[in-house]
Amino acid sequence: MAGPGSKRYVLGIDIGGTKLAAGVVAIDGSQVSQDRVPTLAHEGPDRVIDRLIDLCRLTVENSGVPWDQIIAAGVGCGGPLDPHTGVIKEPPNLPGWVDIPLVQRLHEALGIPVYLDNDANAAALGEHRFGAGRGVDNLVYLTISTGIGGGIIIGGRLYQGENGNAGEIGHMSVAFDGRDCNCGGRGCLEAYASGTNIAARAREAVEAGERSLLLEIAGSPELINGEAIDAALRAGDPLTVRIWDETMEILGTGIANVINIFNPKRVVLGGGITNFGSTLFDPIRRIAMSRAMGPLTEVVEIVPAQLGGQVGVLGAVAVALERIGTTGSEVGVGV
Amino acid sequence: MAGPGSKRYVLGIDIGGTKLAAGVVAIDGSQVSQDRVPTLAHEGPDRVIDRLIDLCRLTVENSGVPWDQIIAAGVGCGGPLDPHTGVIKEPPNLPGWVDIPLVQRLHEALGIPVYLDNDANAAALGEHRFGAGRGVDNLVYLTISTGIGGGIIIGGRLYQGENGNAGEIGHMSVAFDGRDCNCGGRGCLEAYASGTNIAARAREAVEAGERSLLLEIAGSPELINGEAIDAALRAGDPLTVRIWDETMEILGTGIANVINIFNPKRVVLGGGITNFGSTLFDPIRRIAMSRAMGPLTEVVEIVPAQLGGQVGVLGAVAVALERIGTTGSEVGVGV
Repeated sequence: MAGPGSKRYVLGIDIGGTKLAAGVVAIDGSQVSQDRVPTLAHEGPDRVIDRLIDLCRLTVENSGVPWDQIIAAGVGCGGPLDPHTGVIKEPPNLPGWVDIPLVQRLHEALGIPVYLDNDANAAALGEHRFGAGRGVDNLVYLTISTGIGGGIIIGGRLYQGENGNAGEIGHMSVAFDGRDCNCGGRGCLEAYASGTNIAARAREAVEAGERSLLLEIAGSPELINGEAIDAALRAGDPLTVRIWDETMEILGTGIANVINIFNPKRVVLGGGITNFGSTLFDPIRRIAMSRAMGPLTEVVEIVPAQLGGQVGVLGAVAVALERIGTTGSEVGVGV
Repeated sequence: MAGPGSKRYVLGIDIGGTKLAAGVVAIDGSQVSQDRVPTLAHEGPDRVIDRLIDLCRLTVENSGVPWDQIIAAGVGCGGPLDPHTGVIKEPPNLPGWVDIPLVQRLHEALGIPVYLDNDANAAALGEHRFGAGRGVDNLVYLTISTGIGGGIIIGGRLYQGENGNAGEIGHMSVAFDGRDCNCGGRGCLEAYASGTNIAARAREAVEAGERSLLLEIAGSPELINGEAIDAALRAGDPLTVRIWDETMEILGTGIANVINIFNPKRVVLGGGITNFGSTLFDPIRRIAMSRAMGPLTEVVEIVPAQLGGQVGVLGAVAVALERIGTTGSEVGVGV
């Protein structure tokens, strides 16, 4: 156990568009408490932040860990944001959050150092410290869910870029004359292979008059979602198979690009799409490895993320530990 | 001037498919000597390396710098190669060079430490230390000539990746269902926008029966080259304009990807294609900046390389200085 004065815990805070989560975690990654409440983002930043502070106090109380044993808080939140100043810029999933000095607000309320990064960077750090990337120096993390985010670990550290916005791998174009993307670009991975856009491509094909089981399964084009696609894929529906195969070509190409650019040891894939399991990983591995350059494929593995639903809080904890500049073994030694 | 025993010079060695160059350079980048001979690559590695060693001795003699004032030699060479073991793997431009322990051979002959990297990484280091990237922490370098190579500077240091092969930005695909590339991938930047492939695309269009001034200028399809394209472009030839515009879309998309992924301070473009000047830079800047994400475009500049024909030797010198881990100001002080 921790002796008096040895701090061994971090408060992890995950701010999502639909839920807020907070938990107390030991620096070895073992979780002591975790609590959640709905975000109710429409209430605006002031009320959400007040509720978040209450949640933090609750989860620390539930953990039984005294406040003076908590080194810091880490926060993961949708970007854009400034990790250095701790200001939330204007995330699409948090309407009305414009230039919110979140770190300052939390620091004043909680009385401990607070560190912020975007949720994809937080997840990359979480997988690197506690999950599928442990012990790996050079790692690229991709999360594929409603959007596609990325995080880059280089030499064991998060690479943030010139103003904290590096790693937008979802906005790497693999089709210079392809689909328009929300970001203003064209042919981005996200414009094809996010959950939202896989469903949109299927819907567009059905609305254009193509016959598909999807329509029977979903009931109407606008109800086509991941579950309907999964069911139609299992039934061998030709349109769904074609869209899935194209999605795998696109993601495989994107990952081949990541391999050619970064020469990483590991590419870690997280997010809801990984629930497709080998239906996703088998073709992606085959395509990425056949398209990437030989000497680079020899050292790389493409693996699923390991933290699952815990990645929000554990990623936030990893943000704080990264910023403090410690590894697990360097804090709270001498117990 | 250097006092006795203070070493202030590096020998830079540039191994190309057509010429070998070597020069003695002070650690501030000022060149004391430079000498060149043809590679005569068909003679095979042993005779080429013997000639290279003679060239090194000649250029040191020409420089007037005593050997004991030369800290080290740096070498830039076409990859693939292993920068850590100093072994040349099997570069396409040096037939018969298979697993050649170049660093060991040069070290035995010259009696000084020898450091090796591929020519694109060497050029990136050279531009970072002596040219268009001075003082910049996060920089991506692209060289566009017969092929397309890249080098990545992160936190002021070269990023080499897991086994020394990072930075293959020419083999980033921007067309997942596009042209086959020599590397085995599809739709790579190099498959469209290298000098070789710009000419090949024009040739294919002419051979397919499209009318173009190019045929008159070049005489026959297989003689279409950069000069012919330049002339046809100036004359407003529609086919050439269309191919050039598509090339700019492709390069602009590739650079937007680089910006979204790396959030760099500077993107430096080198290689023969930069002789097109504003015909290249104006559209590329416009397209890259309109496609990359807002917060990342605010901090980045797209600039031409500055070292020109000196980049081979100066890049090799920068490889040695990088590997020694010094900056210019930390070696040979106390003069």
